[in-house]
Amino acid sequence: MIPPVVLLTDFGTSDPYAGLMKGVICTITPGAQVIDLTHEISPYDIRRGAFVLLASYAYFPEKTIFVGVVDPGVGGSRRPVCLCCGGRYFLGPDNGLFSWVAQKEGVDAAFILEKSDWFLDNVSKTFHGRDIFAPVAAHLARGVSMSDLGPACDPKSLESIPFPTPVIVPGVKIDAEVLVSDRFGNLVTSIREQDLRACFGKAYENSVVIIVSGSSVKGLSDSYASVGKGMPLAIIGSSGFLELSVNMGDASEFFSAAPGTRVQVALQ
Amino acid sequence: MIPPVVLLTDFGTSDPYAGLMKGVICTITPGAQVIDLTHEISPYDIRRGAFVLLASYAYFPEKTIFVGVVDPGVGGSRRPVCLCCGGRYFLGPDNGLFSWVAQKEGVDAAFILEKSDWFLDNVSKTFHGRDIFAPVAAHLARGVSMSDLGPACDPKSLESIPFPTPVIVPGVKIDAEVLVSDRFGNLVTSIREQDLRACFGKAYENSVVIIVSGSSVKGLSDSYASVGKGMPLAIIGSSGFLELSVNMGDASEFFSAAPGTRVQVALQ
Amino acid sequence: MIPPVVLLTDFGTSDPYAGLMKGVICTITPGAQVIDLTHEISPYDIRRGAFVLLASYAYFPEKTIFVGVVDPGVGGSRRPVCLCCGGRYFLGPDNGLFSWVAQKEGVDAAFILEKSDWFLDNVSKTFHGRDIFAPVAAHLARGVSMSDLGPACDPKSLESIPFPTPVIVPGVKIDAEVLVSDRFGNLVTSIREQDLRACFGKAYENSVVIIVSGSSVKGLSDSYASVGKGMPLAIIGSSGFLELSVNMGDASEFFSAAPGTRVQVALQ
Repeated sequence: MIPPVVLLTDFGTSDPYAGLMKGVICTITPGAQVIDLTHEISPYDIRRGAFVLLASYAYFPEKTIFVGVVDPGVGGSRRPVCLCCGGRYFLGPDNGLFSWVAQKEGVDAAFILEKSDWFLDNVSKTFHGRDIFAPVAAHLARGVSMSDLGPACDPKSLESIPFPTPVIVPGVKIDAEVLVSDRFGNLVTSIREQDLRACFGKAYENSVVIIVSGSSVKGLSDSYASVGKGMPLAIIGSSGFLELSVNMGDASEFFSAAPGTRVQVALQ
Repeated sequence: MIPPVVLLTDFGTSDPYAGLMKGVICTITPGAQVIDLTHEISPYDIRRGAFVLLASYAYFPEKTIFVGVVDPGVGGSRRPVCLCCGGRYFLGPDNGLFSWVAQKEGVDAAFILEKSDWFLDNVSKTFHGRDIFAPVAAHLARGVSMSDLGPACDPKSLESIPFPTPVIVPGVKIDAEVLVSDRFGNLVTSIREQDLRACFGKAYENSVVIIVSGSSVKGLSDSYASVGKGMPLAIIGSSGFLELSVNMGDASEFFSAAPGTRVQVALQ
Repeated sequence: MIPPVVLLTDFGTSDPYAGLMKGVICTITPGAQVIDLTHEISPYDIRRGAFVLLASYAYFPEKTIFVGVVDPGVGGSRRPVCLCCGGRYFLGPDNGLFSWVAQKEGVDAAFILEKSDWFLDNVSKTFHGRDIFAPVAAHLARGVSMSDLGPACDPKSLESIPFPTPVIVPGVKIDAEVLVSDRFGNLVTSIREQDLRACFGKAYENSVVIIVSGSSVKGLSDSYASVGKGMPLAIIGSSGFLELSVNMGDASEFFSAAPGTRVQVALQ
């Protein structure tokens, strides 16, 4: 069984860039399944790419090959790499894009993509997604060994972007931030459910207040519809992080908040 | 042969939500083909979702599994269901999303998705597309019987949203409305070709006038290019409904019309 | 092995049009792989469609079936055609969409799609992508011969749109234009690398200046990061054309340029 190849890029879908990667993959490995995770990462937004990969990788089968191309340094000195983390492969530029998955799962092995046998014959200066990462992914999918891609590299040498770990004062408060917002305006914070339990105990749902940009929400909800239409709520979202939402509405507008906005959780 | 799984959601493509559903499906049923019908239903717009499914289902093979997730009530009291209509399966929230297909084809069988064996191990409060509907679809695709998904339910008990059936005064007029507009600005009305024939007879093409927002179009056209560039026309569209269009232009702008705008057809 | 079917349209993804083409294809030829090149060609922008196909076709395997539907003349007198160019098939309206590929590769054979056996039973007036091109592509993919699609046609009779070939004064200057811009704001000009070499010799990289809308860039760069953040540069882009870019920024904004804007290359 050929493992699926999953694409995450900042290419959008109005240009043929994502389609070209698929063309290269199906030329080298006919029958490979290619799945779009998203191509709508904002240009150069490595941090959002890192979050999407962190929230997503575990829902794909083992041996899945993730190709992540958010690559402002293409053609420069950044290294093209392949990591093995949590039983999956991650191919792309070494610029921190995979670092949140790596921090969670650890890195079992890492290799520099230096063996040009697996590249397209002509490598352009500006599109390594098509010329390096897609063909290497296709060769990996058809059975080439990871260790044949190039020299091993020390996982400690990989680029990393800091995860905004919440600051917890046990029993008192958590200081954190909005990590990302989504299409519905839901605000995903950097606070995991276990942070809430660690700080406030098992019954945190009814004892906490969440404060964002001067507005506050008391307690956590079990569903969007548990509050009136247009009303705000806090809920453990689908990635396991605390989220702020508005029933049938847009929390990023309601709270005038965006990635980076400070969030505090305290006792009511 | 594994039947295709077709996704219709309001998730957009900037978040990984649609991709995550594909990850879950290919984990459970490797080799299943997943087709995006659209993920660009406006958030919570069940009515548009119902129209898109109505206009689309017949173009997919029998046994196709449609997963429809426009689900503002996720985590609340609405039931997760599987319907069999017209030889295809429809999985999603029981909120009317499938009711226009159900009204047209009748419902051969309906089941409540209660058997958690077919769910992911952890079901989140906010993303049943990933945790319930995608895995159940994948199990159905690999051969699990519909009747193994949970208890049967009375099709009459299913939620329904009213189709805006045109009011026909035979030989005189049809009162109807704009159902949806599309990317090109074409206005799809709620009037089917058979309504025109029933009201005005076989030769309706040259005898009717269509009135929208104070503007009118005389007769029906056979192609966009049958009128000058920028000129309005009426035509039987690809879903079998009367549409208003502008050759190389945008009818929703031309007529200042949108879903819900009244449309009248009368004799010239 | 079933060859892949590649879709390029101006349908967008908010309507089900692209999905419907896939439904038709998988009904006729189960297991066919369908790849989206892009559905975000601006409505009716045949020229951009022609460019995207030119920049893309060679990255797909031989025998790939490209279905191109940018078709303002649907239902009118324009002919539905199938071309064989460069070992791939191109199906769509005869309106110039395939002419830049045809000019580059030559046309090995061309047929008019007249044999309605390969169409859907009911052909609508407005959606030949679903009713003619998708089913014909599916039949071609499952092994129907190109010559069975309809009568042959003289390649010279095919519609063509002129490629804006640069005007070269050897050793002095090249006058050209911006061909397209992309999501990142990169400006792809109509100047190929070989034009630069032919005009200015092998060492052109350091000797030329590129002038657009009164701004100028000296020399060519090897990567975006070779200039400071926010600074402009010229580079040979991934399609082999000279491009203007801004490191981590948007060249179309920087130069106030768009498709059609004049570009001149001269000696410094």
